[in-house]
Amino acid sequence: MKNAKHAKCVKCGKIYEATPDLTNCSCGGILEIVYDYDYIKTILNKDILAARTDRSMWRYRELLPIEETTENTPLRVGWSPLYEEPRLAELLGLGRLWVKDDGQNPTASLKDRASAMAVAKAREAGAQVIACSSTGNAASSLAGNAAAAGLRTYIFVPSRAPKGKVAQLQIFGATVISVQGSYEDTFELSKAAIEKWGWYNRNAAINPYLSEGKKTVTLEIMEQLGWQVPDYIALSVGDGCTIAGAWKGLKDLYAVGLIDRLPRLISVQAEGCCPLNRAIAANEPWRPMEENTLADSIAVGVPRNADKALMAIRESNGIVVNVSDEEILAAQRLLGRTCGVFGEPAGVTGTAGVKKLCEQGILGKNDTVVSVVTGNGLKDVANAIKAAGEPISIPGTMDALLAAFAEKGIVVE
Amino acid sequence: MKNAKHAKCVKCGKIYEATPDLTNCSCGGILEIVYDYDYIKTILNKDILAARTDRSMWRYRELLPIEETTENTPLRVGWSPLYEEPRLAELLGLGRLWVKDDGQNPTASLKDRASAMAVAKAREAGAQVIACSSTGNAASSLAGNAAAAGLRTYIFVPSRAPKGKVAQLQIFGATVISVQGSYEDTFELSKAAIEKWGWYNRNAAINPYLSEGKKTVTLEIMEQLGWQVPDYIALSVGDGCTIAGAWKGLKDLYAVGLIDRLPRLISVQAEGCCPLNRAIAANEPWRPMEENTLADSIAVGVPRNADKALMAIRESNGIVVNVSDEEILAAQRLLGRTCGVFGEPAGVTGTAGVKKLCEQGILGKNDTVVSVVTGNGLKDVANAIKAAGEPISIPGTMDALLAAFAEKGIVVE
Repeated sequence: MKNAKHAKCVKCGKIYEATPDLTNCSCGGILEIVYDYDYIKTILNKDILAARTDRSMWRYRELLPIEETTENTPLRVGWSPLYEEPRLAELLGLGRLWVKDDGQNPTASLKDRASAMAVAKAREAGAQVIACSSTGNAASSLAGNAAAAGLRTYIFVPSRAPKGKVAQLQIFGATVISVQGSYEDTFELSKAAIEKWGWYNRNAAINPYLSEGKKTVTLEIMEQLGWQVPDYIALSVGDGCTIAGAWKGLKDLYAVGLIDRLPRLISVQAEGCCPLNRAIAANEPWRPMEENTLADSIAVGVPRNADKALMAIRESNGIVVNVSDEEILAAQRLLGRTCGVFGEPAGVTGTAGVKKLCEQGILGKNDTVVSVVTGNGLKDVANAIKAAGEPISIPGTMDALLAAFAEKGIVVE
Repeated sequence: MKNAKHAKCVKCGKIYEATPDLTNCSCGGILEIVYDYDYIKTILNKDILAARTDRSMWRYRELLPIEETTENTPLRVGWSPLYEEPRLAELLGLGRLWVKDDGQNPTASLKDRASAMAVAKAREAGAQVIACSSTGNAASSLAGNAAAAGLRTYIFVPSRAPKGKVAQLQIFGATVISVQGSYEDTFELSKAAIEKWGWYNRNAAINPYLSEGKKTVTLEIMEQLGWQVPDYIALSVGDGCTIAGAWKGLKDLYAVGLIDRLPRLISVQAEGCCPLNRAIAANEPWRPMEENTLADSIAVGVPRNADKALMAIRESNGIVVNVSDEEILAAQRLLGRTCGVFGEPAGVTGTAGVKKLCEQGILGKNDTVVSVVTGNGLKDVANAIKAAGEPISIPGTMDALLAAFAEKGIVVE
């Protein structure tokens, strides 16, 4: 790789050669990929990107830690739509608002970006098997992207993972181990198994390449906005990897001169599981929390990427906000009704946070915000029904229809 | 519209002005939009398309029946990925095989193409409310596309519609009427209600613009293949609207000189509900059938677009093939494991048909085939679990993992 120099521990600063099977530093710290920005400036600019027809995350190869000879992975990951939402902005009292619907990825979540990167690096490493633990989306994205590339997967999920995500894993042919315990228990078992059998490790916060895949979400946002930087980017936060990746993408763009300022991050967590936001708000080290939220993808009591996530929020002069499960379900309805975007609970948590900050007067008419929806609501139908209720059920007659409308107080215009 | 001349009844030949609120002919026949191909040739060619950055169905505006001033609808519909699948082609014994994953649309099915068109035409008609009946996907796509455009919807679904599709409707804020009866009962009630209240009608086979939206799937396939025509295009068939639309797209491309020959269509129906394929195979008029299949989207015993569908299959010198529910579930697993594509049962029925035709020796090494996956498997998780089984469930210890692997006969490499 000419564009990437090495990996560096964010904790102790130790330098590692950027081999494809990198894991954590010997000190336990997480590694970060360090680029040669001067070199990248000589091969990448706005015009080169504008002329590119590839509409996937691989259009940003110059900013990604892969060999020049590594093939694009098979599924079309990335280049999800960025919708401007003037009606929702008006409703919330914001200057301008865009929704990035990352549920429009092959396996229906932002995690496809990390998993496609894992598959690319596993191929570089010559691996045939990849493994991970996940609350669900990392798992299904790994299973799908690996299946398309002809690689086998072993996947560990907590037993609470929603049915939609488990169904995806099974269909993609993964060997799925559903662990009767918390995400932490699941993670520890996957770690032991990966050590025992030497599988390629796609655990986020262990494999430093994953956040490099995730960062493509902000690379895209900026290109889709014509390189005009918004004031804020709002994200739901669990493990911390996504917000850390998003920030890395922004810093990379700034370093190579594609953007001229940096937005502030909005870190949104569930009230029932907000160890990172609590640490920021109290300005103290993070401590584990219970996992009390229906937003399963961000129910992470022991965040594995706390260091990078906290650094990202602080460096960006970010805002933290926690939302209740009710506020999450309300945001799900709001995005559906106003924007035609159906996100899973964790997927809409960022938007729930934006709404709350508007209500608190922290965001307003002078602010421009991008809210990232990180996963599709079809993954968790049970909670969608909880949010939006059941339909009117009647026999197929006009009399029954009129009676039902009358009973529900529906006045047809 | 300079590009569209008028609408013409496929049954009696009567001509209608192409107003936005067209429904069926007074004779009961279905209307077809007739274009001015000579004019279109003056404004559209391969180079013009290649230079276009819009990656949605609206990149084909010159071939679509909308006013020049009509805005693109808000959601990003179309330009779904077309994957070449050499491993699956090898497995099936085909020359070349491509899978078009139309589950990668905003509401996760091909029906978004028709619904986006309905929304565009409803806006031209000045309508505020759109209604339809549907086995599920037309409904959820209409609800989503209308919500994004700020229009209200009334939607009629049979009570057997899978939970995922109903959840989408509720989230998108539609008024949903779940009819305790067949699709036919549901359709009839929607028809009566639309007549009573004068809503804009998005019922397929009633509104002639919808198949014009659907035809964008074949416009895209041909452009994505670099205008190289495959021997066959395989589709699952229910109401008949999708295959009719697909054929219309191909004929349009041929008429304006963008392709130089036409592929043959493969019409795949479920054994338990195959009135159209039965009519073709026996060379007799179609007759209603029971709706005995788990592939809910194509469980249509009284196909509403029989005329156009039968014409399309016959004109293309097409092949018909019926598949069992077991064969549908097997195709679902096969696409997941080999391609990383997760389709709903009706979505993978086309591929199930291709597999069967390969096994029967009707398709083989000399044939090139595009198989369209029409909807995402996340819409119907219950059937996916039926297809692929449940995961291994254990406590979070290495002993339990080793015991489970031993019990299941899993040998880790």
